[in-house]
Amino acid sequence: MSAQFNAPRLETVLRSATQQVVIGHGNRFCLIGERINPTGRRIFQEQLRAGDLSAIERDVRAQVEGGADVLDINMGVPLTDEAELLAKAITMVQTLSDKPICIDSSVIDALEAGLAAYQGRALVNSITAEDERMEQVLPLVKKYDAAVIALPNDADEIPMEVEKRITLTRKIIEVATKEYGIAAADIVIDPLAMPIGADSEMVNTTMETMRRIRDEFGVNMTCGASNVSFGMPGRPTIGAAFLPMAMTAGLTSAIMDTRTPQIVEAVKAADLLLGHDEWGGAWIAAHRARLAREAAATA
Amino acid sequence: MSAQFNAPRLETVLRSATQQVVIGHGNRFCLIGERINPTGRRIFQEQLRAGDLSAIERDVRAQVEGGADVLDINMGVPLTDEAELLAKAITMVQTLSDKPICIDSSVIDALEAGLAAYQGRALVNSITAEDERMEQVLPLVKKYDAAVIALPNDADEIPMEVEKRITLTRKIIEVATKEYGIAAADIVIDPLAMPIGADSEMVNTTMETMRRIRDEFGVNMTCGASNVSFGMPGRPTIGAAFLPMAMTAGLTSAIMDTRTPQIVEAVKAADLLLGHDEWGGAWIAAHRARLAREAAATA
Repeated sequence: MSAQFNAPRLETVLRSATQQVVIGHGNRFCLIGERINPTGRRIFQEQLRAGDLSAIERDVRAQVEGGADVLDINMGVPLTDEAELLAKAITMVQTLSDKPICIDSSVIDALEAGLAAYQGRALVNSITAEDERMEQVLPLVKKYDAAVIALPNDADEIPMEVEKRITLTRKIIEVATKEYGIAAADIVIDPLAMPIGADSEMVNTTMETMRRIRDEFGVNMTCGASNVSFGMPGRPTIGAAFLPMAMTAGLTSAIMDTRTPQIVEAVKAADLLLGHDEWGGAWIAAHRARLAREAAATA
Repeated sequence: MSAQFNAPRLETVLRSATQQVVIGHGNRFCLIGERINPTGRRIFQEQLRAGDLSAIERDVRAQVEGGADVLDINMGVPLTDEAELLAKAITMVQTLSDKPICIDSSVIDALEAGLAAYQGRALVNSITAEDERMEQVLPLVKKYDAAVIALPNDADEIPMEVEKRITLTRKIIEVATKEYGIAAADIVIDPLAMPIGADSEMVNTTMETMRRIRDEFGVNMTCGASNVSFGMPGRPTIGAAFLPMAMTAGLTSAIMDTRTPQIVEAVKAADLLLGHDEWGGAWIAAHRARLAREAAATA
C-alpha cells in the first residue's frame, strides 16, 4: 500500500462577468458542457467556415438546460482562422449565458485570443506534461489569471501505470507553481479515463490514480466522462455508474454532453449521497421541477 | 488517517442443491432478491395464514427474472407458526428455482426449521453483536454449515460512529470464529446503510465503514440497498448511484427487490467498470438479450 498523504483539498474558482463556480472536493460536482464543438459535425463546420455562428446558440441553450455549470467552447475547424473564430464565439456565448467558460483549443494563438475576449476567470483546456506545451500555455494562464486542465501524459506515451501518472502530475504542478507562479488550486488534473473495452482493469487504474492525486496533491480533477464507455453498448448506463464511482475517488468535475439526463441525474444523486447537497435541497427541487415539466407536457 | 491494513479478501460460498454462488471482492456483485416477504403485504399475509403459498411462485419468478443470484425468504406473518411456514416455503422455493437461499427470520425456531428444510449452503439473515442473538443463532450456523449476515449494532444502539461499528464487527468475527469455529469467510457484514434524509454525512460514514471493514477483515458485505433513499423522491436513481459507489468501498452484495432494472443495470455496469466482467462478456450479452426482448415485444 502506498504511503499516506492527506493534502489540503483545494478549490478552483471560475467566473463569468456575473457568476462564480467553485470546483472543490466538498462541493457539488461541476458539469462542463462539451457540445459547443464542431468536431465531427460537418454542417456545423460549414456554417462556422461561412461565418455563421447561429448554431452555437442552440448548443449553448441545450447544455445549460441539461445542467452545465461551465461551457466548454472549441472552434477547431480546419481551414479557418481559429483564433478569430474562437474569440468571436466566446464573445457571443457571453451574451447568451452567464456560465463561466472553458476555452478549448490546441492552438496557442486561439487560446490567447479566447482569453483576451473573455470577461472573467476562464478554465483553459488544456496542457500536458510536455515541456513545450507548458512553456506556451502556462504564461497565458498566468497573464489572464485563468485556471488550466492538465493531462499527465508526455510526448512519449499515455502512461498506463498509476505511478507514472502521479510522477507527471507532480511535474506539472511543480512547473506551474514554481516556474509560473500559478496556484495549485488553479490546476485541474485530467487523470486520463481510458475505455474499459481495451482493458478490464483500466477503470481500477483510473480510480487509483484519482485517489492518489486527491490525497497527495488535493487538486481538483476532471475527465472526459464518455471515454470509459467507448465501443460498448449501453453507454449512458455505464457513464451513470462511472461518475458516482469516480466521485468517491476524488473526481470533482467532468467534461460531458449534458443532454444525457441519466448521467446528469446520477451525478446529482451522488452529490446527495456524498453530502454535497445538504438536506437534499437541490435533489428535491430538481424532482419537483421534473414533475412540473411532466405535468405541463401532458396538460 | 487510520492505520493501514490489507487483510486477505475472503469468499463466501453459498449453494443450492445444484448451483453455487461465490460472494467475493473480485467477483460479480451478488444480488439477494428480497421480495419473498409478506411484510406490509396484507393479501399475501392472508393467503399464507390460510396455507396458500401459491403467491410465492410469482415472487420467485420475478426476482429471478430481475437478476437475483440468491433468494431471501422471510415468512414473518403474525399469528402463524413461522417455523412450519418457513420450512414449507423453503421446501417449495427449492422446487421453483435453483438459486441459493437466504433464510430470513428473527425467530430462532424458524431459522432452524428453515435450515433443516434446505438442501445446500444457506445464508442466515441475521445476527447482531448482541450476545443473546449470537448464542442462539451461531450454533445453528455451525451445525448446518451455513453463512450468516451480521449487523454491527448491539442492544443499546445503532452506532453512528465508524469506530464503534468496527469494534462491533471485530467482536462478531472474534466470537463467531473463536467460540463457534465459523470461518470469517462465512460472515457477511451489513455495515448499516442509513437514510441519507436523516443526515447528509450518513453515506460517507457508511462508505468509510465499508472501506475499514474490507481492509481490516477482508470479509464480504451486504446491505439493504433501498434504505439510503428512504423518504426521498427519485429512489431508483439514488439506489443506482449508491450501489456503484458502495462497490468501490467494498460492498459485495445487496439485499434488494430486483424488479428495479435501473438499479440492477447500474450494478452490472459497475461490475464491468471494476473488472468483474472480463471483456464485458456479461454486459454485452445482457445488452443483446435486451435488444432481442424489445424486438420480440414490438414484433
